[in-house]
Amino acid sequence: MRFTWILCLALAGLSACNNEKANDADVVKDIFSEALSDTTAYSNLKTLCTRYEGRICGTAEADGAVRWAEALLSSMGLDTVYLQPMMVPKWNRGEEEVGKVLSAALGDHLLSVCALGWAVGTGPEGVTAEVVEVTSKDQLEKLGDAGIRGKIVFYNQPMDPTHYYTFESYGEAVWQRARGASMAARYGAVAVINRSLTMASDDYPHTGIMHYADTLPKIPALAVSTVGADSLSGWLKKDPAIKLFLRTTSQDHGEVTSYNVIGEIRGSEKPDEIIAFGGHIDAWDNTQGAHDDGVGVIQTIEVLRIFKKLGIRPKHTIRVVVFMDEEVAQRGGAAYAASVKAKNEKHLAAIESDRGGFTPYGFSIDASPMTVGKINNWKKLLEPYGIWSFKKGGSGVDIRDLQPMNIPLLALVSDSQRYFDYQHSPSDTWDKVYPREMQLGSAAITSIVFLIDNYGLE
Amino acid sequence: MRFTWILCLALAGLSACNNEKANDADVVKDIFSEALSDTTAYSNLKTLCTRYEGRICGTAEADGAVRWAEALLSSMGLDTVYLQPMMVPKWNRGEEEVGKVLSAALGDHLLSVCALGWAVGTGPEGVTAEVVEVTSKDQLEKLGDAGIRGKIVFYNQPMDPTHYYTFESYGEAVWQRARGASMAARYGAVAVINRSLTMASDDYPHTGIMHYADTLPKIPALAVSTVGADSLSGWLKKDPAIKLFLRTTSQDHGEVTSYNVIGEIRGSEKPDEIIAFGGHIDAWDNTQGAHDDGVGVIQTIEVLRIFKKLGIRPKHTIRVVVFMDEEVAQRGGAAYAASVKAKNEKHLAAIESDRGGFTPYGFSIDASPMTVGKINNWKKLLEPYGIWSFKKGGSGVDIRDLQPMNIPLLALVSDSQRYFDYQHSPSDTWDKVYPREMQLGSAAITSIVFLIDNYGLE
Repeated sequence: MRFTWILCLALAGLSACNNEKANDADVVKDIFSEALSDTTAYSNLKTLCTRYEGRICGTAEADGAVRWAEALLSSMGLDTVYLQPMMVPKWNRGEEEVGKVLSAALGDHLLSVCALGWAVGTGPEGVTAEVVEVTSKDQLEKLGDAGIRGKIVFYNQPMDPTHYYTFESYGEAVWQRARGASMAARYGAVAVINRSLTMASDDYPHTGIMHYADTLPKIPALAVSTVGADSLSGWLKKDPAIKLFLRTTSQDHGEVTSYNVIGEIRGSEKPDEIIAFGGHIDAWDNTQGAHDDGVGVIQTIEVLRIFKKLGIRPKHTIRVVVFMDEEVAQRGGAAYAASVKAKNEKHLAAIESDRGGFTPYGFSIDASPMTVGKINNWKKLLEPYGIWSFKKGGSGVDIRDLQPMNIPLLALVSDSQRYFDYQHSPSDTWDKVYPREMQLGSAAITSIVFLIDNYGLE
Repeated sequence: MRFTWILCLALAGLSACNNEKANDADVVKDIFSEALSDTTAYSNLKTLCTRYEGRICGTAEADGAVRWAEALLSSMGLDTVYLQPMMVPKWNRGEEEVGKVLSAALGDHLLSVCALGWAVGTGPEGVTAEVVEVTSKDQLEKLGDAGIRGKIVFYNQPMDPTHYYTFESYGEAVWQRARGASMAARYGAVAVINRSLTMASDDYPHTGIMHYADTLPKIPALAVSTVGADSLSGWLKKDPAIKLFLRTTSQDHGEVTSYNVIGEIRGSEKPDEIIAFGGHIDAWDNTQGAHDDGVGVIQTIEVLRIFKKLGIRPKHTIRVVVFMDEEVAQRGGAAYAASVKAKNEKHLAAIESDRGGFTPYGFSIDASPMTVGKINNWKKLLEPYGIWSFKKGGSGVDIRDLQPMNIPLLALVSDSQRYFDYQHSPSDTWDKVYPREMQLGSAAITSIVFLIDNYGLE
């Protein structure tokens, strides 16, 4: 820490500090230097990912991850650490899924498949039917009952590679996974299988949540790897009479108790005013959940570590929220928002990190134009570290329930090129996260928290 | 291609086009879409890297790469393809190098080492001596003759991890490799070994060019992997009497002829005015040279492919220069500049890509403030693709000799976090390049060439 800044801190209670801007640049430099030279965060990411793999809500792995996060925060010398309970859904995918192409002409071929999250199972006997390939909503509608009844719908609309921001490509293609089952059930389909939502060509199936319409039959829904999807599409061209055998034994187990984990450094001047930040600790049952979203948890815990390490004492209370259940029913976010409302807690801002641990370049800001403008004034402090984009936009699923309370919401935005190669699949392992890239995100969030703490957002 | 833009092109000869800005945005979008959805470039990168591994100047691999590039350009329907000859140095590292720690107390241990480029060999008998570890220039000076004579100097100053832009860390540490041998020879060292210039902890030694001072004895110079350097440093603390055995049989072979490869699309209005762009095709003999600099070659060849694919006819001649010998004596850059001068060729700009195939974020511009300002006016067109930084700064080694001719020089700037993990080492393989990241760079250069062609830089 530089002398001028210490002096400035010492004088802060007495008078406005002349060297405000120069000092801010020094603190931001210290924050980035600490993040880039310390290995605690990367070590924590490895532990979380390897010890609590598959920590979807309701599992022993999720419980273990919650206790681990609580113990980690408790070891950091914070002022407060506590659990925030809520009910979460529990589901189990059962035995390993089977997807098999049956063709008299081409022979039988196994496909790499997995059940979508919270889809019903086929039962142990499985389901066998002809396959109809669909690459757009329009095509589905045109096929209608005549083309679909009694068949398995194979959704095969690839993610569009031409978008710079791959979340756009995801947004256009995710209907297949999220709503494809009911859309096909409306026309009498017996099951659906969808191309994994990735631009990578590999043999990992990518799972993710799906939703049934209440008024339609619930049919089994699986994902197939992109390699499998391309093979299946090719075989269908050679033999349209192909049948597909699908077997999933997933089961719904109702609801159980789980927890958000909260840790705080109390504010020295306004302890009742809070800056909150977090990621979600749950991850799909087929993955280590490194980029989605072990990184977000680790980066936001890192904010508290860096504040303590640099001896920065916040004026307002700064709080990490390790959210449970982002993937399924967003109960952690709902519980947190309900608690904020019940306690009438004042929040200066809430920040989420849930877009992967790649080199960050800005924040998406869900707030008034005045607040967006104020944050843009800090651009010159962060641009030397590649953080240049501060734009109006959506924030994060875990904090969105705070929106009705008019709390400024921010999301860290990172380079999205590689994100969907990993999301919701067994390939999302800790070693796919590059430590410097993750730590630039930790430092970006810490810097924004530091600036909000000093200057507010109003 | 959009109708409005075709219309605009058609009218361009008759009058200024009203829709200039809107059309530019459309063309830039088309350029990025083409780059992100076509696989030619990545396939070319793989071929270059796997077929012509270790293509340092003077080798058969370098010759093969030149012929390959010539054939590739000749297959693209360009207006001109030709070779530009020059003399290049030739050197051979000989047999696999040996580095062995000899310690009565700790036992003997092999280290992962390689000769630095153009260093003299130890001869087949090798050299054995005590080791003195040095982590700064100051420390070297203090040790002086008394501490160094007859010993091997072990340079072990790590790259500083706290810089955002890792080329800064490299710039601070590269003296050990580039000038360390002569600095130590001044005090009577018998050889030097330097910590590889990477922040990664792995067992790859990283080579690179080194230079001898004319007035001092030439002593052998090797690199050791960071894992090896950390081990050696630890062993020295336990047993300062450790000896090191080093053996290299490298040999200088004088000079031979090699070539730049040049390909052009002739300008429709001002064919004698040129926009040049390129990367260097040579790569160290221990690597595939993917990020350094297969990517630069491929990205700049891609500019021509995209112009042709989209049917964009340039007003000025656009020219790719596939440079030979960036790594050693920069003879390709010198030959190109000499030719420009001799032919009195007018260049609107020269652009180099030689900073790795990672997600790009801007251009470093070596030009007048007015030119920098003009390029900044195009920011709004490129910012949607993450290209936001257009700053005054250095360009590239291959084009720097054009500076005295007052040609505006630009370098593509990409995310540098991972670059030095690979540079000059066996780990710089084609699969370490992520296709979308590389192609964003291809599109960024193509877009800038398109804009310079339309609006100039004056």
